[in-house]
Amino acid sequence: MTIPNQRIVYLNGEYIPENEAKLPFRDRGVKYGDAVFDTTRTFGHKIFKLEEHVERLFRSLRYVGIDPGLSVNEVTEITEKVLELNLPLIAKDEDYWVSQRITRGIIDPNERTAWPSYTGPTVIIECLPLPLSTRSRLYRDGIDMIVSSVRRNSPDMLSPRAKTHNYLNLIMADEEVSAQDPNAFALMLDHNGNIAEGRGSNVFFVSDGCLYTPQERFVLPGISRQTVKELAKKISLPCIEKDYDLYDAYNSDEAFITSTSFCICPCRSINGRTFAEGGVPGPVTEKLMNLYVDLVGFDWVSQYTRYPVKDVPRM
Amino acid sequence: MTIPNQRIVYLNGEYIPENEAKLPFRDRGVKYGDAVFDTTRTFGHKIFKLEEHVERLFRSLRYVGIDPGLSVNEVTEITEKVLELNLPLIAKDEDYWVSQRITRGIIDPNERTAWPSYTGPTVIIECLPLPLSTRSRLYRDGIDMIVSSVRRNSPDMLSPRAKTHNYLNLIMADEEVSAQDPNAFALMLDHNGNIAEGRGSNVFFVSDGCLYTPQERFVLPGISRQTVKELAKKISLPCIEKDYDLYDAYNSDEAFITSTSFCICPCRSINGRTFAEGGVPGPVTEKLMNLYVDLVGFDWVSQYTRYPVKDVPRM
Amino acid sequence: MTIPNQRIVYLNGEYIPENEAKLPFRDRGVKYGDAVFDTTRTFGHKIFKLEEHVERLFRSLRYVGIDPGLSVNEVTEITEKVLELNLPLIAKDEDYWVSQRITRGIIDPNERTAWPSYTGPTVIIECLPLPLSTRSRLYRDGIDMIVSSVRRNSPDMLSPRAKTHNYLNLIMADEEVSAQDPNAFALMLDHNGNIAEGRGSNVFFVSDGCLYTPQERFVLPGISRQTVKELAKKISLPCIEKDYDLYDAYNSDEAFITSTSFCICPCRSINGRTFAEGGVPGPVTEKLMNLYVDLVGFDWVSQYTRYPVKDVPRM
Amino acid sequence: MTIPNQRIVYLNGEYIPENEAKLPFRDRGVKYGDAVFDTTRTFGHKIFKLEEHVERLFRSLRYVGIDPGLSVNEVTEITEKVLELNLPLIAKDEDYWVSQRITRGIIDPNERTAWPSYTGPTVIIECLPLPLSTRSRLYRDGIDMIVSSVRRNSPDMLSPRAKTHNYLNLIMADEEVSAQDPNAFALMLDHNGNIAEGRGSNVFFVSDGCLYTPQERFVLPGISRQTVKELAKKISLPCIEKDYDLYDAYNSDEAFITSTSFCICPCRSINGRTFAEGGVPGPVTEKLMNLYVDLVGFDWVSQYTRYPVKDVPRM
Amino acid sequence: MTIPNQRIVYLNGEYIPENEAKLPFRDRGVKYGDAVFDTTRTFGHKIFKLEEHVERLFRSLRYVGIDPGLSVNEVTEITEKVLELNLPLIAKDEDYWVSQRITRGIIDPNERTAWPSYTGPTVIIECLPLPLSTRSRLYRDGIDMIVSSVRRNSPDMLSPRAKTHNYLNLIMADEEVSAQDPNAFALMLDHNGNIAEGRGSNVFFVSDGCLYTPQERFVLPGISRQTVKELAKKISLPCIEKDYDLYDAYNSDEAFITSTSFCICPCRSINGRTFAEGGVPGPVTEKLMNLYVDLVGFDWVSQYTRYPVKDVPRM
Amino acid sequence: MTIPNQRIVYLNGEYIPENEAKLPFRDRGVKYGDAVFDTTRTFGHKIFKLEEHVERLFRSLRYVGIDPGLSVNEVTEITEKVLELNLPLIAKDEDYWVSQRITRGIIDPNERTAWPSYTGPTVIIECLPLPLSTRSRLYRDGIDMIVSSVRRNSPDMLSPRAKTHNYLNLIMADEEVSAQDPNAFALMLDHNGNIAEGRGSNVFFVSDGCLYTPQERFVLPGISRQTVKELAKKISLPCIEKDYDLYDAYNSDEAFITSTSFCICPCRSINGRTFAEGGVPGPVTEKLMNLYVDLVGFDWVSQYTRYPVKDVPRM
Repeated sequence: MTIPNQRIVYLNGEYIPENEAKLPFRDRGVKYGDAVFDTTRTFGHKIFKLEEHVERLFRSLRYVGIDPGLSVNEVTEITEKVLELNLPLIAKDEDYWVSQRITRGIIDPNERTAWPSYTGPTVIIECLPLPLSTRSRLYRDGIDMIVSSVRRNSPDMLSPRAKTHNYLNLIMADEEVSAQDPNAFALMLDHNGNIAEGRGSNVFFVSDGCLYTPQERFVLPGISRQTVKELAKKISLPCIEKDYDLYDAYNSDEAFITSTSFCICPCRSINGRTFAEGGVPGPVTEKLMNLYVDLVGFDWVSQYTRYPVKDVPRM
Repeated sequence: MTIPNQRIVYLNGEYIPENEAKLPFRDRGVKYGDAVFDTTRTFGHKIFKLEEHVERLFRSLRYVGIDPGLSVNEVTEITEKVLELNLPLIAKDEDYWVSQRITRGIIDPNERTAWPSYTGPTVIIECLPLPLSTRSRLYRDGIDMIVSSVRRNSPDMLSPRAKTHNYLNLIMADEEVSAQDPNAFALMLDHNGNIAEGRGSNVFFVSDGCLYTPQERFVLPGISRQTVKELAKKISLPCIEKDYDLYDAYNSDEAFITSTSFCICPCRSINGRTFAEGGVPGPVTEKLMNLYVDLVGFDWVSQYTRYPVKDVPRM
Repeated sequence: MTIPNQRIVYLNGEYIPENEAKLPFRDRGVKYGDAVFDTTRTFGHKIFKLEEHVERLFRSLRYVGIDPGLSVNEVTEITEKVLELNLPLIAKDEDYWVSQRITRGIIDPNERTAWPSYTGPTVIIECLPLPLSTRSRLYRDGIDMIVSSVRRNSPDMLSPRAKTHNYLNLIMADEEVSAQDPNAFALMLDHNGNIAEGRGSNVFFVSDGCLYTPQERFVLPGISRQTVKELAKKISLPCIEKDYDLYDAYNSDEAFITSTSFCICPCRSINGRTFAEGGVPGPVTEKLMNLYVDLVGFDWVSQYTRYPVKDVPRM
Repeated sequence: MTIPNQRIVYLNGEYIPENEAKLPFRDRGVKYGDAVFDTTRTFGHKIFKLEEHVERLFRSLRYVGIDPGLSVNEVTEITEKVLELNLPLIAKDEDYWVSQRITRGIIDPNERTAWPSYTGPTVIIECLPLPLSTRSRLYRDGIDMIVSSVRRNSPDMLSPRAKTHNYLNLIMADEEVSAQDPNAFALMLDHNGNIAEGRGSNVFFVSDGCLYTPQERFVLPGISRQTVKELAKKISLPCIEKDYDLYDAYNSDEAFITSTSFCICPCRSINGRTFAEGGVPGPVTEKLMNLYVDLVGFDWVSQYTRYPVKDVPRM
Repeated sequence: MTIPNQRIVYLNGEYIPENEAKLPFRDRGVKYGDAVFDTTRTFGHKIFKLEEHVERLFRSLRYVGIDPGLSVNEVTEITEKVLELNLPLIAKDEDYWVSQRITRGIIDPNERTAWPSYTGPTVIIECLPLPLSTRSRLYRDGIDMIVSSVRRNSPDMLSPRAKTHNYLNLIMADEEVSAQDPNAFALMLDHNGNIAEGRGSNVFFVSDGCLYTPQERFVLPGISRQTVKELAKKISLPCIEKDYDLYDAYNSDEAFITSTSFCICPCRSINGRTFAEGGVPGPVTEKLMNLYVDLVGFDWVSQYTRYPVKDVPRM
Repeated sequence: MTIPNQRIVYLNGEYIPENEAKLPFRDRGVKYGDAVFDTTRTFGHKIFKLEEHVERLFRSLRYVGIDPGLSVNEVTEITEKVLELNLPLIAKDEDYWVSQRITRGIIDPNERTAWPSYTGPTVIIECLPLPLSTRSRLYRDGIDMIVSSVRRNSPDMLSPRAKTHNYLNLIMADEEVSAQDPNAFALMLDHNGNIAEGRGSNVFFVSDGCLYTPQERFVLPGISRQTVKELAKKISLPCIEKDYDLYDAYNSDEAFITSTSFCICPCRSINGRTFAEGGVPGPVTEKLMNLYVDLVGFDWVSQYTRYPVKDVPRM
């Protein structure tokens, strides 16, 4: 079957149609999740903080000890090229996730016999349209967070700060929570019992006019998380990184998550406890959302909310 | 480039040449290591304890919540068929690893546009010749084990008993140890500080005529580990599963690892401390190796040791 | 308002109508939950294992250091008397919970001025009809268990083995779970991440023809739990007390809870994962239920299931 | 027996004599300690920081998920009324503790048959004269603190920040310490081994001209603790909230506890190690005590110390 | 000053008067406690289980990686010789502790300049008369145990099973407890909160006709502890090694400690809680004491108790 | 054998030749490592920060509860005198370590019979020439750090902040690492899995123009560490004390250790991961080294590096 108008993917030096972008099952990225990645998004077709994302990608690479065989500049340029090739494929009011994925490739010569030339790391750079229509409800009603019993990886086992292809710890939490409510978001505690993060998102709480977010040591150091901290600073809203637990959360006035694609999405409840009066977004969240829109020069809120509300598809 | 005489791989219902067995990079097995696997081996071209391996595979599947879409019997039959198709490709004195790998596939329709028919889990069943020649030295001299500072995943984060494609925790330990000595094996402690396991292998110690091995809760429940326990029972050698720490290890008389391919491989030292007089295999290890050879009716020791000694290739 | 036909309660030496059985708010039992209790039930109006329950009560008393001022025999006799006084008040096919509750009373003379004669511990012995009608559904469909993120008290803080009036740790778990599903039962993990217990109930799993239940150190040593162990012994069903985690639970064939009133109630699922084929009770559970019925000489299963199905009232 | 001149207690909408203020033993406050409370005191018959205490009460309520059915304002007004009614009962030079206690009441209709109208939460607001005479010695000699082996509840089990009726964890520590020395105060470590708090009191240490106190996450956020922080700020005395351990404590120059009734009470020793030269209060403690007296406009120190020294009654 | 009739000490190959047995302060045994030791005692001038003690000494040596430069046999023979030389110095009704101590010596040549010939490990073998007269009271009244807040070293830091010269962890516990009661014995919890051991002694509890003692992993594997296990086996008294916590201890009927010199000494209380009726020794303890006397063919109980009661000298 | 020109040691009130400075083996410093010490060094024969070192010594003394029987001033004066007596013995371009060591002496009269006058604590004050020649290579190439599997003592067992004679925990780590590479330095993690310290040294990392070092709670509060913090402040280089883990370390640009004798010594790698480009010292390290040289007015770098490179002798 031919797929018309396919997205173009960069794979190990070549720009190819997405459905040709496949990996030998013996690639360590497949066998072991022995890979790291990073993802940014476009706003109105313009890429956001690409440099920060590529730098974080390189920190993840250094942590797991993979040499990408490309410089920061090369990865940046290829990313921009991949985006450029794919922009014509989406509508003006749509946007892309843009991701780099780097696996350790096939190391063992014994495993490489069927792909003799498959040496070095595997580098994939790719785009995916944002799932705009499925998230409208979340911006309207707020996210319901449920804390999973599965604890986030402790840093002396595998640091949550490296964005790797080892997601089963996060997926186990998701499975647990979505079995209760397919629309809810799983929030995980760290090994000390403090709030850590959800799959692919950081969390912030608003309490007594302060912003709180878990310590970096236990979570992905999100670029959107960093952006929110900078916006807060701009309006002199104190933002404190600290161990934050359920006593704090149940007594918070507002909460929101941040992620590359969501930017800021308000939360309605945690473990069934509704924040404050329950209207979303709360005033501080709303102010930060507006500042975020201003910063990127693009109204991503409307981009999501113009869709009629649908259920979030279950993972 | 054409690869002649390629191995045949089962992929999602088809038997295809290995170099066609590739996965879309959007498969969750690639993106998240969201997959489980199991591996047995042949002895003299006969497969070993396939039933036990497939049952363990299904336990791993149930743990991560993947429905393979195939029954235990179907997986068993396909495995046998794959082996049958590949046996003609190796010499009489070589043998195979035979593995099943099942990923969650692509779940999100948004990610499936380039592969519209790629629904359901991804099932791979495949063979790989054992790396016989590279291991000769280990059987002759014994393995040097070094304990990594990285701790094995704790069971409330991701159970070490499920054999998944999330191997970075194990790989971080390997990286640490092989940086010191490329021929050494990394041994990990569990989150309580007891000895757990190495990548793909269980460990046993011999002390005062008893066999000791770490508790199942913190390690992969190896089929070879189980086999050794059964052999020990046969000769009334007590085998105790317990929390075993470095005080125990430094005072042990012998040690060996077990794995599907290694069966039993003697260890020479741990953290530079040589076991007993240092000759390998120790008497108890040797007895168990002989019993293992008898059990499977095949002299896998000679299969390894007939090769001239080479260095273990670094991971 | 007068309540006709009231139950009789023993309170500090007197047998009084239940609505007169009230405690000064300065009683440490009220202010601090500084109290212990125990509860047995009747089967066909006959009390079950009263001796074992009173002995456990005295172990709880010793743990928290309360001197009840009564001997084991005295507590037993008063309990029997209280039951005798109350049996006429229920129908033949109903049964009672029978409980002893002992608080430390008011210790500080400064707090006793309004109740100058209120010295010594407070002893309450009382009956409550079993909530038969509300549980019919659970026996028909099985209990859905959800694991809370709140961890069970660790024994070096407050031992879960003492049955005290400090239930907030258990209630926090219940709150979390019932916010998701008012009919579900909260199951808690101990501080090591193993399955511990739910509020007022122990849990058993059936796997490969064995019975498993968490270690006593982390749970209430239930009398019904003990009864099930004895029944299992009678039919040579191995019953193993061990650290049991979610990998085990997701791979179990059956599960059930035990409690004084429930005796044995089958479970349908844990975290949305249905046990085996999902029919309840599973064969082993059913066999144990029948044995339990035989042991007590009373069909408590029918006693519950003869009621039409209603929802479990939320806590 | 009639008690003349009784204190008046608010109980569920009524102002009644204290010895009528009793709770059905089926109230969850009695059965489970399923309740929260807060306590302030008067200085010269004037109530102190009532607003802060009521706000903390509402944070405790939110944490355990009890809806008091009253607003912050209503609770405040009733508290003031209760105090007003009781002030005539004490001498001019005495003062009151003033407490609000809110239980979840009886939720289960099955348990409410003897008290059919007992719906909603139970609200108690009450006064108790401060135990002035028994504490004179502590101000003169300083408190001897002994660290218990029982660890303070960890926040992922039950947050020490919520002031609940579940005090057994604190009582177990008290029991242990008072068995050694009935006049000593038990100090508890948190689950990480840092100093946390004692029953009903926070602890401060003075070292090299700085004030130190344990992190809020592990202790009750005392209003007097907060007051001391504000006083310290006023005189530019640095006050640092941090993990504080026995190495720190043994090297401190001074220590004191804070609580609603004690305000500031100097400590003489910890685990038998006398602070500095052992004179109490130390100079920094004394300065803070004086500032506290100034702040509240009442000499509570003399209020305590004018009494001849007696032993502290054992709990 | 000349000391007449001095004991003879073996020091690095020589038999010398005790007051010449001194170590360079640069010996690592002095600077770092980098040394291990073991101690047995005589009964009626006959040495007890010397072989077991020397074997344990060698396990300690292997754990810390010190090569003693002597064989098991040599250490045994020197020990016997040292004892023989010293026996004439004590009365017939007195007995000796006999100890081997081996330090790593001076390793760094830079530190050896003042003692150029001081190479190899330092080996000391020595005798000390048992402190018979000071312990009479303990046998008569029983030991009062107090649980310290200091936790016993966790095995992944320094195994409690190796008998080393690093005693500060134990001493910190002793300091804490003897500050409260100079006659009490400090009992420590392991890092999980279970009962571990005291300085130089193991602890046993009797409950419902069973003997319980903490797991070896967290304590010194005492030879007397082993002896008690063997005696219990002889009389079919079940002896269970398990995690034992304060709930267990407070509900025990009897308790006793074991050590080389004490053999078995009954305990009266733990944390002020008196065991059972409080008479010491309890019946099971007494039976084991008698068996121990029989086993060694010497009435060590009378040896202690014939002295008039004195206070235990504080450490 | 007579040693000419011996160093003079202060021992319990006397100034004696080093080879007479010996301790009875019954001194608790020998038997238990029951002792603390502190060490400073000279720069060009001038002692550095003696006051800070003596104050830290007294904090260690207070922690373990040893009363030295000497004041801070007395210890300072004796130290200066000892140095003065020994300076003539070394060359102009050499320097000294100057140490105070204080043990608890012999407490038990039973143990003091051979040394009847040996009462009170044992005080040793002594000099040792710095091992200049063996460290040249480390300054030239940088130190290779390897993280041990042994974890640093947790503060609730024995605080790493007290500088005691209990070094086995550190030595076990050293043993493990030097078995792999005799020239490498062992770096330990604290019980939470963060980087702590090595034997006798603190560690700093440079990342994005900031200096990072582990929290004091888990390490020795080094005087050189403090000096580096002061130097950093002087040049407005932010220096942050925080939990620092392997993700941080693998992403650092530079690292160095500090210790009394090393002052600052650059590190080349950690676990085989080379910092930045691998040149040592990195620019920030070099700047701090220069500032340190300026501060002490002595070029200790050249003092080390003028020696031809030799291997570090194994411990």
